[in-house]
Amino acid sequence: MSTYSHLRINPERFRSDFESLARIGARPESGVHRPAFSDSHLNARAWFRQEIIQAGLELRVDGAGNHSALLPCKRPDAKTLLLGSHLDSVPDGGRFDGALGVLAALETLRVIKENGISLNVHLEAIDFTDEEGAYVGLLGSSALAGTLSEASLKNPRSGRQAFLHGLASAGLEKSGLRQARRDPSELAGYLELHIEQGSRLEKAGAEIGVVISIVGIAAARLVFLGQADHAGTTPMRDRRDASLGAAAFILKAHELVRERYQECVVNTGSLTMSPGAFNIVPAKAVLALEYRAPDLEMLSNLGNSLEKKARLAADRYRLELEIEHIETHLPAPMSEMVQEVITTAAGKLGLRSLPLYSGAGHDAQSLVGLCPTGMIFVPSVGGASHSNREQTFWQNCLHGANVLLHSSLKLAKRLESQ
Amino acid sequence: MSTYSHLRINPERFRSDFESLARIGARPESGVHRPAFSDSHLNARAWFRQEIIQAGLELRVDGAGNHSALLPCKRPDAKTLLLGSHLDSVPDGGRFDGALGVLAALETLRVIKENGISLNVHLEAIDFTDEEGAYVGLLGSSALAGTLSEASLKNPRSGRQAFLHGLASAGLEKSGLRQARRDPSELAGYLELHIEQGSRLEKAGAEIGVVISIVGIAAARLVFLGQADHAGTTPMRDRRDASLGAAAFILKAHELVRERYQECVVNTGSLTMSPGAFNIVPAKAVLALEYRAPDLEMLSNLGNSLEKKARLAADRYRLELEIEHIETHLPAPMSEMVQEVITTAAGKLGLRSLPLYSGAGHDAQSLVGLCPTGMIFVPSVGGASHSNREQTFWQNCLHGANVLLHSSLKLAKRLESQ
Repeated sequence: MSTYSHLRINPERFRSDFESLARIGARPESGVHRPAFSDSHLNARAWFRQEIIQAGLELRVDGAGNHSALLPCKRPDAKTLLLGSHLDSVPDGGRFDGALGVLAALETLRVIKENGISLNVHLEAIDFTDEEGAYVGLLGSSALAGTLSEASLKNPRSGRQAFLHGLASAGLEKSGLRQARRDPSELAGYLELHIEQGSRLEKAGAEIGVVISIVGIAAARLVFLGQADHAGTTPMRDRRDASLGAAAFILKAHELVRERYQECVVNTGSLTMSPGAFNIVPAKAVLALEYRAPDLEMLSNLGNSLEKKARLAADRYRLELEIEHIETHLPAPMSEMVQEVITTAAGKLGLRSLPLYSGAGHDAQSLVGLCPTGMIFVPSVGGASHSNREQTFWQNCLHGANVLLHSSLKLAKRLESQ
Repeated sequence: MSTYSHLRINPERFRSDFESLARIGARPESGVHRPAFSDSHLNARAWFRQEIIQAGLELRVDGAGNHSALLPCKRPDAKTLLLGSHLDSVPDGGRFDGALGVLAALETLRVIKENGISLNVHLEAIDFTDEEGAYVGLLGSSALAGTLSEASLKNPRSGRQAFLHGLASAGLEKSGLRQARRDPSELAGYLELHIEQGSRLEKAGAEIGVVISIVGIAAARLVFLGQADHAGTTPMRDRRDASLGAAAFILKAHELVRERYQECVVNTGSLTMSPGAFNIVPAKAVLALEYRAPDLEMLSNLGNSLEKKARLAADRYRLELEIEHIETHLPAPMSEMVQEVITTAAGKLGLRSLPLYSGAGHDAQSLVGLCPTGMIFVPSVGGASHSNREQTFWQNCLHGANVLLHSSLKLAKRLESQ
């Protein structure tokens, strides 16, 4: 592979692509708004299709609306090395999240093609549908992996009608989603470049993050049930006030994670009390709970500890407690071989790399069960993401794209020699 | 007055009235739904007008939609003794709250009229508009007292358009509200029979409560402000999580009142967090706070202590705090003379009475600044109110009405002798 060590991403073309894409769905102060199947998202996909054609690459669109550029190798029975991310954004999100990885993947294919490099794998740059979950989180990559659950399709976050309408607006049908499934034996590996969305790389002064694992995520709804009463006439000691159970649990949950689960995080992002009046003792408090852990044992232990805290809080204030488990994404360990490939590629480019966990979910987690999978992170300024404050210095974007290019070449080589 | 000591409310007529009224806006399991200016409320008022006419009493409707039955005395320059309460209910409320007092007032006038008793005061049985505050709490009684604030009219709980529409549906105009004001020199006193909405009478085994004072009520909105961040990638120690400030305050506020303000109550009835997602650290938590105290000094001290607790909670979690004072109802002490009249009347009827505070607000608090004012309570089963669980044993309703009748006669006599 040393013959290719001079190869680099075309910085002008890459930058120009980035800026063209950032104009689609642009919002004030450098934000973008491209939720899946919105007009701006559909425009971004149309733009991507056009880029693929202009680059002389093959275009492939599957039943889940995943868009790919293909650079086939000469052996028709070769496996496919996937490189990708997503073009959709959260509402009022940033320019880098997802977009960077898709553009770097496309640019990698272009550089390899225009240098006439012949590999023993097909290369595919893929844009996955609805990674952010306007409808169903990781929709496109789960469809490709064949792990789309019937439950999430029946109960999309947007509601069912909006989901069907969204699919239709992209020319898709629910029945087509299953056809996006790929046979794992066809896949050589998956690489994804993404911004860190945290501040560990920045703090460590590293240019490249090598993801060890994507954390597991569990979400649940906790319902504390007491009794509605007149807030003026009911003695304090006779009340069964749902706000107290929820408040006590919020504090205990954060204390637990800070003191005993320092590699984990917890969030209490929403609380709804009813009847919800100034003058009525709240009978019901519904709390949105999410927690993340780097491995399955810790995720499970943390879940059990949180449940105990919730029961104690409910008992203390004479409340009933109902726990509704919403969803669980298991921790997704990256391939050690791919981690080594990325670390080596970064080193050869003179970049400092740092192994780290991804606290956020990514399409890569859908792929871990199918083929050797790895993720490359670049630093987020101040750790900001999912907002117009999201920023990655351009030099780091270039570094990341070059690490993707060289990791791809190295990975293709490894697969040849196997 | 001993000549009238045999007088009693007509139990069959009173019961029949009660049941007719309870059918208007009836809900399953003995509830009623008669928010101000709803169809059922307007129907209840039409029914009341009809009852007034049929009883041969004069009908009076003022600019705030207060409905009255009048039994004039022979001296045209006499003062008026008001007896009343309200026919509106909270949404899905009970049959007794308000209704009992209006019906007992009407029945008192009927009994005095049909017994040909001549008093030196005009008697007026009044139904006050929107006591419960579907639009503006204590609207009718505040209008009569001339204490309607411009602020509450500009910013009704229902929103402005709904308020104007509600007034119009009852044939009222905002400009007419001021015309409901009555000159205090025309008023001899005000008496109100009401259910306790608490359980102190029941626990004490007393049939009659003599209200010492209506507690003061203050309501405020507390806004804890932090920062929205990715709930997976932001380290716990870097977060400014608004849910923590709100939760800590909820617990501290309740602890404060239980330990140091045992005659007071506090309620944290609603909490709204935003952005409000499972996976975003909550940037904002808006808490509805209400607290009540039996006298002004305690109300003020408690308010200050709560504010300190809120600031400590905000500081501890590095949050900003904004406090928006919504409304304050000052504590309303009842006339000592009227308390004595009620206590004597109860005693002569062989009933056990108990002096107590009213933890709930009532139309009577609007009248305290105008004329000698008093309230008679009857026991609420289990203390339940503002729900279809609201219940007062019929015998106690009758006791209360008879105490109202005899307190009215006694008060009229006192005023004669002055």
